[in-house]
Amino acid sequence: MDKVTVGIIGASGYTGVELARLLAAHPGARLELATASGERVGQRLSDLFPSLRKVCDIVLEEVDAATIAARCQVAFIALGHGKALEIVPDLLARGVKVIDLGADFRLRDAAVYQEWYKLPHTAAAALAEAVYGLPEWQREKIKSARLVANPGCYPTSAILALAPYMAHGAIVPETIIVDSGSGVSGAGRSSFGVASYFPEVSGDYKAYGVASHRHTPEIEQGLQDAANCGGHGERTAKVTFTPHLLPIPRGILSTCYATPTKEFHGCNLHDFRQFLVKHYEEEPFVRILDAGQTPQIKHVAGSNFCDIGVVLDERTNRLIVIAAEDNLLKGASGQAVQNMNLMLGLDETAGLLGASLYP
Amino acid sequence: MDKVTVGIIGASGYTGVELARLLAAHPGARLELATASGERVGQRLSDLFPSLRKVCDIVLEEVDAATIAARCQVAFIALGHGKALEIVPDLLARGVKVIDLGADFRLRDAAVYQEWYKLPHTAAAALAEAVYGLPEWQREKIKSARLVANPGCYPTSAILALAPYMAHGAIVPETIIVDSGSGVSGAGRSSFGVASYFPEVSGDYKAYGVASHRHTPEIEQGLQDAANCGGHGERTAKVTFTPHLLPIPRGILSTCYATPTKEFHGCNLHDFRQFLVKHYEEEPFVRILDAGQTPQIKHVAGSNFCDIGVVLDERTNRLIVIAAEDNLLKGASGQAVQNMNLMLGLDETAGLLGASLYP
Amino acid sequence: MDKVTVGIIGASGYTGVELARLLAAHPGARLELATASGERVGQRLSDLFPSLRKVCDIVLEEVDAATIAARCQVAFIALGHGKALEIVPDLLARGVKVIDLGADFRLRDAAVYQEWYKLPHTAAAALAEAVYGLPEWQREKIKSARLVANPGCYPTSAILALAPYMAHGAIVPETIIVDSGSGVSGAGRSSFGVASYFPEVSGDYKAYGVASHRHTPEIEQGLQDAANCGGHGERTAKVTFTPHLLPIPRGILSTCYATPTKEFHGCNLHDFRQFLVKHYEEEPFVRILDAGQTPQIKHVAGSNFCDIGVVLDERTNRLIVIAAEDNLLKGASGQAVQNMNLMLGLDETAGLLGASLYP
Amino acid sequence: MDKVTVGIIGASGYTGVELARLLAAHPGARLELATASGERVGQRLSDLFPSLRKVCDIVLEEVDAATIAARCQVAFIALGHGKALEIVPDLLARGVKVIDLGADFRLRDAAVYQEWYKLPHTAAAALAEAVYGLPEWQREKIKSARLVANPGCYPTSAILALAPYMAHGAIVPETIIVDSGSGVSGAGRSSFGVASYFPEVSGDYKAYGVASHRHTPEIEQGLQDAANCGGHGERTAKVTFTPHLLPIPRGILSTCYATPTKEFHGCNLHDFRQFLVKHYEEEPFVRILDAGQTPQIKHVAGSNFCDIGVVLDERTNRLIVIAAEDNLLKGASGQAVQNMNLMLGLDETAGLLGASLYP
Repeated sequence: MDKVTVGIIGASGYTGVELARLLAAHPGARLELATASGERVGQRLSDLFPSLRKVCDIVLEEVDAATIAARCQVAFIALGHGKALEIVPDLLARGVKVIDLGADFRLRDAAVYQEWYKLPHTAAAALAEAVYGLPEWQREKIKSARLVANPGCYPTSAILALAPYMAHGAIVPETIIVDSGSGVSGAGRSSFGVASYFPEVSGDYKAYGVASHRHTPEIEQGLQDAANCGGHGERTAKVTFTPHLLPIPRGILSTCYATPTKEFHGCNLHDFRQFLVKHYEEEPFVRILDAGQTPQIKHVAGSNFCDIGVVLDERTNRLIVIAAEDNLLKGASGQAVQNMNLMLGLDETAGLLGASLYP
Repeated sequence: MDKVTVGIIGASGYTGVELARLLAAHPGARLELATASGERVGQRLSDLFPSLRKVCDIVLEEVDAATIAARCQVAFIALGHGKALEIVPDLLARGVKVIDLGADFRLRDAAVYQEWYKLPHTAAAALAEAVYGLPEWQREKIKSARLVANPGCYPTSAILALAPYMAHGAIVPETIIVDSGSGVSGAGRSSFGVASYFPEVSGDYKAYGVASHRHTPEIEQGLQDAANCGGHGERTAKVTFTPHLLPIPRGILSTCYATPTKEFHGCNLHDFRQFLVKHYEEEPFVRILDAGQTPQIKHVAGSNFCDIGVVLDERTNRLIVIAAEDNLLKGASGQAVQNMNLMLGLDETAGLLGASLYP
Repeated sequence: MDKVTVGIIGASGYTGVELARLLAAHPGARLELATASGERVGQRLSDLFPSLRKVCDIVLEEVDAATIAARCQVAFIALGHGKALEIVPDLLARGVKVIDLGADFRLRDAAVYQEWYKLPHTAAAALAEAVYGLPEWQREKIKSARLVANPGCYPTSAILALAPYMAHGAIVPETIIVDSGSGVSGAGRSSFGVASYFPEVSGDYKAYGVASHRHTPEIEQGLQDAANCGGHGERTAKVTFTPHLLPIPRGILSTCYATPTKEFHGCNLHDFRQFLVKHYEEEPFVRILDAGQTPQIKHVAGSNFCDIGVVLDERTNRLIVIAAEDNLLKGASGQAVQNMNLMLGLDETAGLLGASLYP
Repeated sequence: MDKVTVGIIGASGYTGVELARLLAAHPGARLELATASGERVGQRLSDLFPSLRKVCDIVLEEVDAATIAARCQVAFIALGHGKALEIVPDLLARGVKVIDLGADFRLRDAAVYQEWYKLPHTAAAALAEAVYGLPEWQREKIKSARLVANPGCYPTSAILALAPYMAHGAIVPETIIVDSGSGVSGAGRSSFGVASYFPEVSGDYKAYGVASHRHTPEIEQGLQDAANCGGHGERTAKVTFTPHLLPIPRGILSTCYATPTKEFHGCNLHDFRQFLVKHYEEEPFVRILDAGQTPQIKHVAGSNFCDIGVVLDERTNRLIVIAAEDNLLKGASGQAVQNMNLMLGLDETAGLLGASLYP
């Protein structure tokens, strides 16, 4: 069978290089073009990322939608937010399937997008058809989608952790707190500055964007979706979200707190763990830990897995659900390839089954 | 003036070496003896910790209470929990002032101690007179104490962050969550194992002791004390506490969540920040950050400071108070020296004013 | 085609888990059994290494040579030195092809082995037929070998860097210095101790085994082989080798110094770079950097590549050849799989073409 | 006694903040002014470096030489190279003692300066009187100097390690290789970029500036000085110098290689160690390790100590001298304060005796 032809629009960042790495080992897809801007055009991607030498030496191009459409069946958009608004409708119109790794099509409500991203949403039609690309909760819709909005890194971990409980009305939406730590690569390659200079991050740990991070409404939307889907959407999900910067290159761990609803008081740890089992047992990329275990970033970094563990604090009657993932894989490029596999009828796990490097 | 004579009982761990470092630079105290056990007796402390060569080359001894009493005015106990129960009453009886860096005298209720530490408390009289050594809240009692229980590392950060609100009845006790990250040295030097082997911690982040860490009742006791002291002790402090292991050698950051009580709904960030200002403005080792700022471990690691910042999440009506400290200084040996200064009538800040190394 | 059946003898260390990870993604080989000892027997490998959950959940067995021979065509030996001496002759006699990741069959001279490893070599016949498994220099011999001695991590980097010059008599053997830095995983998983406790390695850098590391005679043997093979073996390779411990989990960088021989004085950087090009241009896992570039561990960690760059210090007339590799891949398990591929007639690169994770 | 009044010219970099930290704890000196440029003027130094809050809240000024002279007895210059050429002669003329932490006055030969720094040297008179500020070798000259050129970080370690041997003609100058690793702070705070972005340095190790680093002639000059001083200057020191970037915030370890001269063949390790003992036994900031020990960055980082160990590789007849220091202390600001103490008649060790933080 011919391989699917793929383009990466905006290949010079960390999600771009990660897509190139995954596609180089993908049995059913072929990277046909990769774009960049400015002086990078004409360079090989492996000039920017020498880790790719002899693996992916594709030359970066500055191309337009017509060229992409002529050469690619599917395009990954790895640009900053706002930029996908322009190119996505054009690509869709030309018949290219699109997976956007940015934020432009994640929030269904354009007003919420404008409130948090300070930009008017100028692609209403595309937004209306976009599918939120979390396969564990939207698999069938993704299979038939033309446009997938690839979830943000923090929301992937938080939604996977809490959605099973929301779907059953098992936790009180107003009590949800998501406390996360992320590796520095989550900020993207172009955002280096003195605050991310090695000597200032090494040995440090800090919160940032407290009560104001843009992934907050995305987490709330994902949890509300799960609640609605389970018939428990009457109460609105409201989340306090505190991201922290970890002195590691990649990985996210989200420690999520919520109080069980009255109907589920008296449930024990085993009961609460079964929510996860029921929803994820058959999932290829979610691993439910045994009772008593909690996840570690090191066990997932470099892989597309999300590990989830749950603890019940009986003293305070509070549920603690912890999820770990690689922010660049299950939190970005790995999930994007998973979505591509679904959209194009390939094996969902193709190219994605590698274990994390350990140690 | 003659320098105070000091002994360190159990000098071969991280709190021991840190005490030795601080005392070497202390203008009013002199390290008179340092003890160890087994084959370490007879070695210099600087053989174990070459960082101390030419700074503190004291020879480790195996001595008894009588010898300590003969040579020292004050003794720091840096042994594992349970071991101080034996020696402390003896030292007190011989007139030595004692600062215990372990857990044996922190919990006033012997039953709570037994529940969490799985040991009967066999030193009731000493426990009855022990003062919890958090100078910002117990300064006067510390000054006249014969026995100070030096607070745990996590509790120091959590109590400093939340006690001002508890003292005014400004937060609902049942809503408190403390989510902390600590450097690996918090586990102590003797607890190395494959789980703390460098390759397995580097790049990792994980929760541990979830809903079961022994510092939980100590945090609750400290918060309850503040509430009682402010006349707001009618509701019992119950805390969900989740410690995480950070891939750094030292430092703690505690992100503390709580919902304001009804009386304080409508307060803005400025109002909530004033609680901190009111309690800590004159404190030499607490630094209140400006509104909009949150603390970083890197700014306090290596110093005796605790930095505190507060954020109000108006969307969810939740207070987020974040505190950073060095677990070995304000969280252990630095605070112990601060207590020594108070107990012996020295300048409270003597030997403790150094800034953290940066970067 | 049926997949090759493979056993890992001693799977509970880092080379073991890395082999399991590689074999799980290998198109032509299947992990048939994995052994361990003591209480680990009966556990899943993924209990020890949760990174392997859902990737390789093989149960560890305690088996004998007969069982291995009945079930496996090839066995990887990942035991400490000395232990392969016992089992390897037995496996060979039973028709199993063997790749030993330890040191027991690397040094052809049993007396040298005894001198450096303080053990008599008790498997002379096996030693006589063992092939040193550096494919870039021994490919044809490896293809027909029954027993391959997989090179040490440091020697792989140093020999790849310097052998092209030795083969042409281009450097003076007595002037060779190899100054290397290695990630901590090089010490193996079972060797944790207070010296490799996270807080003591983080932020540190130190030499160890100076002028006494056991890889020294192996480097010398490899360089002498290259000299002999090129007809320049009249002078004996003598190497000063200084390994250092880097605060990273994996990777080796070797900075190698040598003075050109008189015949090659006057050669410029381009000329010296051509030695590398000539020998390695067609190699799948050696990447020669452009003039002016030097390698970085981060570009190879997680991959089977070895990156090599050369600089000529014209002021001092000294050649500086720098090689980077992943100590657990090209320096151990990756090279072992490469050897397996060659021994069993598979594509040499099968299962090994993944790029390193970046960042 | 009145405290000495001190200015820091260029306080916004890492050497500046480190000077401020040291001076805040100095018993005999007082930081009178600190300068910066651009928008930083008017900010507190502790706004830039929150680690200094409550320790040094001095406001940054943009001042001229006349103001400095009016208010300070001594000025530290912490500007980039080239910039001290302008201000130093002016300050000297106004009677201010000057310690320049940059490179402008380190190389006595203006032609060598121009060759390596690509700038004409425009301050010949000041250069003529400048004293190279390595107290262990220039103490008496420093005491009477008006202008001290504070040594570079790498040269301090390399010269301290090898100068005793050069002074006695014990090593062949042409055989010297200095292989160093440095923490990232050595590049200075303003030099951040994508290559020093945390995700790209974490887990990495690489050489840079191979055979071309500007500290090379400074090392050669320092070694030649020692040779001349010992009457062994007939052969010219020529050094191959290879710096590497370590994934740590601070510290330098230099592994130095040299072949003993014929007169010293037959000397054993004890003999070679005695060179170090003889020169440094009384030095307050040099610590000679026992035979068989080699230094570690972690034991000196945060202190003004330089630890030195020596190994004799008897197989290759090569001396390996290893020195560790903190690049910002003994390699910059600590040594600068040591020089200040000498120039102003204070106790040489004042404010500098703190041990490194461990761990």
